Amino acid sequence: MATTGVTFESISPADFFYRNRSIAGFDNNMRALYTAVRELVENSLDACEDGGFLPTIDVKLSEVSSNWYKLRVKDNGIGVPRDHILPAFGQILYGSKYEHKQARGRFGLGGKMAFLFGQITTSEPLHVITAPVDEDHIFEVLLRQDIEENKPELVKWERRKNRDKKHGCTLEFTLEGNWRSAKRFIIDYIEQTALITPYAHLKFTEPDGTIHDFKRSVKKLPPPPTPVNPHPKGMDIEQLSRLIEDTKTRDMVTFLRTHFHRVGPKTAKAFLKTINMPFSQDPRALKPNDLVKIARGLEVFNKWLPPDARVLSPLGIKLLELGIRSTLNPEFVHVTQRPPNSYGGHPFIVECGLAYGGGVPMKESIIIYRFANRIPLIFDEYKDVSAKIVRAIPWSRYRIRPGMPIAAFVAVVSTKIPFKTAGKEFIADLTELEYDIRMGLMECARNLKGHLRQKEKVQREQVRASVYEKYLPIIARDISALAGRRKIPDTKALAQSALTIKLDEDVEAEEPTPVEEGILTTTPPEIDDTDESVEEE
Amino acid sequence: MATTGVTFESISPADFFYRNRSIAGFDNNMRALYTAVRELVENSLDACEDGGFLPTIDVKLSEVSSNWYKLRVKDNGIGVPRDHILPAFGQILYGSKYEHKQARGRFGLGGKMAFLFGQITTSEPLHVITAPVDEDHIFEVLLRQDIEENKPELVKWERRKNRDKKHGCTLEFTLEGNWRSAKRFIIDYIEQTALITPYAHLKFTEPDGTIHDFKRSVKKLPPPPTPVNPHPKGMDIEQLSRLIEDTKTRDMVTFLRTHFHRVGPKTAKAFLKTINMPFSQDPRALKPNDLVKIARGLEVFNKWLPPDARVLSPLGIKLLELGIRSTLNPEFVHVTQRPPNSYGGHPFIVECGLAYGGGVPMKESIIIYRFANRIPLIFDEYKDVSAKIVRAIPWSRYRIRPGMPIAAFVAVVSTKIPFKTAGKEFIADLTELEYDIRMGLMECARNLKGHLRQKEKVQREQVRASVYEKYLPIIARDISALAGRRKIPDTKALAQSALTIKLDEDVEAEEPTPVEEGILTTTPPEIDDTDESVEEE
Repeated sequence: MATTGVTFESISPADFFYRNRSIAGFDNNMRALYTAVRELVENSLDACEDGGFLPTIDVKLSEVSSNWYKLRVKDNGIGVPRDHILPAFGQILYGSKYEHKQARGRFGLGGKMAFLFGQITTSEPLHVITAPVDEDHIFEVLLRQDIEENKPELVKWERRKNRDKKHGCTLEFTLEGNWRSAKRFIIDYIEQTALITPYAHLKFTEPDGTIHDFKRSVKKLPPPPTPVNPHPKGMDIEQLSRLIEDTKTRDMVTFLRTHFHRVGPKTAKAFLKTINMPFSQDPRALKPNDLVKIARGLEVFNKWLPPDARVLSPLGIKLLELGIRSTLNPEFVHVTQRPPNSYGGHPFIVECGLAYGGGVPMKESIIIYRFANRIPLIFDEYKDVSAKIVRAIPWSRYRIRPGMPIAAFVAVVSTKIPFKTAGKEFIADLTELEYDIRMGLMECARNLKGHLRQKEKVQREQVRASVYEKYLPIIARDISALAGRRKIPDTKALAQSALTIKLDEDVEAEEPTPVEEGILTTTPPEIDDTDESVEEE
Repeated sequence: MATTGVTFESISPADFFYRNRSIAGFDNNMRALYTAVRELVENSLDACEDGGFLPTIDVKLSEVSSNWYKLRVKDNGIGVPRDHILPAFGQILYGSKYEHKQARGRFGLGGKMAFLFGQITTSEPLHVITAPVDEDHIFEVLLRQDIEENKPELVKWERRKNRDKKHGCTLEFTLEGNWRSAKRFIIDYIEQTALITPYAHLKFTEPDGTIHDFKRSVKKLPPPPTPVNPHPKGMDIEQLSRLIEDTKTRDMVTFLRTHFHRVGPKTAKAFLKTINMPFSQDPRALKPNDLVKIARGLEVFNKWLPPDARVLSPLGIKLLELGIRSTLNPEFVHVTQRPPNSYGGHPFIVECGLAYGGGVPMKESIIIYRFANRIPLIFDEYKDVSAKIVRAIPWSRYRIRPGMPIAAFVAVVSTKIPFKTAGKEFIADLTELEYDIRMGLMECARNLKGHLRQKEKVQREQVRASVYEKYLPIIARDISALAGRRKIPDTKALAQSALTIKLDEDVEAEEPTPVEEGILTTTPPEIDDTDESVEEE
């Protein structure tokens, strides 16, 4: 029996992702349209925040012909430097340098997959207009991707003087899509993105011209996340050998201090002792066996300092509350930020919120809004760690019953979000995360309980008041008649005095909640926050 | 505000998958161990079937030190040709040429990811011994992957004469793993692979030396799947332009006939008329606009012949039944093969089975075994289309109640399995698939109902018989006494005659089921199937 027909080939990464596009969320026309909008909005937000600009992002979807849509996304970000325009849009696995920090995306595969999907369904080129910050020109470029070679194919290149010192990027391309099915998800996505980035002005225009305009409700960016060295826990041999290849240090103590997160000379020495390695060992002279010894040792050593959460940039409870109020206009909101925590070398911070009444829709169960590094998660809710915790909390203990208009908010930031899939749609249920989400939501629930109790009291008082108001005059009249008096006494003051009975305090709510409803309207005024720290508690 | 810190870089595909290894199922030590076994077993099965050899695959996992395991997989496949050994094992996105046919994997990413995972966790090289069929030497190679450059790094290369004309491949490497957590999944995987490839001899040795040995129960391979041209439905512009670039045809009618599945001159001409394109149009002279016109037309045209399922290689009901019997040794089995069907240009065939009693474990609900192109699917069952259908079937109508020992089998083969994730763990719920799975399982259920009814009858008869046997002698004795007779008549023949009452036929089971229990024992004899067609119905 002969081996026939088995031949070998090498394919480009672009070709691989073209053949396996479902990996990046381009399974079908519905999902592709949603993913394209999402990836471009996220790239735009990053481009604005990288430059420290308050994001202004304009997304417009228009119908070209049946099932063909033109997507245009315009931002005021830092733009793309001249020399990077072609590969940045036309070469898969080319992008802004990977750093160890809180970030929306990881390697910018999504945007290019969106253009690729447009190209293979409509053959139209991508239209880029970019004004890179710090450059003198605006570039207008038409390009395609050569998928087999994984390189950009230039169609048109023009440049003009950037007289007004603009900066930003406008991308426009055509793709096949199913707007009818994708509509709900895209609008949810835009709305929730507005909620979690209240410092951004987001505008979305539907194919029929309907405009969703989310103005910014605060004029200050949260502090940017800081890139950090990797934490010694969770480091593999490949990472280690790359560090050794590049290091300028000449002894192991300095090596560990220089390239690892929160390792000082004392910790470095204590660690080296556990693996019997001299402090003066030159990292460049390490043998493969030494690398294995170090990697295993790093994992086992139990005196590393936990990762420092100051490198993260959570939204902050002020901004989270503002976002919730301006999106849902609820009767009551409580938000909280948990203390920093970590898992396997990665710091994380959980922020939670509960909103009740007002514009919160009445549903069978609690509505959950999930965010990871300021990305709203729309699909696969029931598989997410937050949904698991929401299901497990004994809500009735907090006077919360099915059918009440309640929304829960869970926002996680981390240098590495433990997504369970490449599609970044839901978060794995790690014990550490579960704990913080539970504690956060339960704190919110206690405060909501206080509010609900107070509300019930007020309602009971109102019932009492109406009883007094109804019967006191009748009693007064009849008693007057019995007493043979003509003049009926005025019962109003009496009825009033019965109402001043003080509401007793809510013993269970640790911090009696200042009920703030009515302070902000649906579109709250822009707050010029001059306070240094936007995210203080 | 200046743009600081945003620099760009290009990374190799190996580096991309190293950084995003969860895409390929290497999320953690548990999953990595499972995925490594699975990918290597599947590659071995392919290597055997490609050469037409009955697979003999020996998988051995041994503990090297705490959390370090050595995985060795040995097969009798076609081996890897000399010139391809290095890239085939050390270069991501290099593999056997992609063809349009029923296949286990798509591009052989999995195996290389397994070696990569081993390398970054243990730094050990991969050990390859391969005897390529049709070559004179056996090659023994040690190699690593240069992840940043995506190229193999040779450590050792030896060759020796292949005196015995052996063929096959042995791979051995060390990786970090969590055997305790992965054990259940790995053993399930091996057991179910044995079930769906009853023509393979699979042996798995656990780290503690426990051996799972699944001998082959049939000595004939199913016919190999045939590579086909792509179906006109579902073709995108990229695919179309690649065909045009390579074609030797010089007119559109010949072009369509030559490169598309089931397109003859009549269909080709009918199609070209709908898009107003001359039959004589030279494909090499097509403009980008023409490509768009053709691609959209291909999608809309409704007279294409459905894809031909003869290119598929389903297991066949004989082999499926054999697999079920030898694995579970049930009291009753019914299997069925649905007629060929298709979705979006891809043919598929569904095979179903129901097993009852015997070795089938008693569970709360029906146990589901799922297979896609002869791969067992182990994770994410509740999201799979088969689980959805099993939940929806009104089982009580078939006398099937919760708590009965019942297992359902659903095997799908297709030129493209609609997996919902890159991890190939569950199948999307397409309407066409749902229909065939429902019809298949319901046919099995009707037959099982017949069996259950017959079984109940037999049980009722046995109860009756025991009543006769118990009371007839007493009655006979007492009556004899009353009649003053000494000799008590023999009641045995009478009791016997009461039992010969015929069981009435099961009116609902279309084909009265030949109940075959007991024909095969736990380890069935090897069948030397000389019949040409193993999979006839």
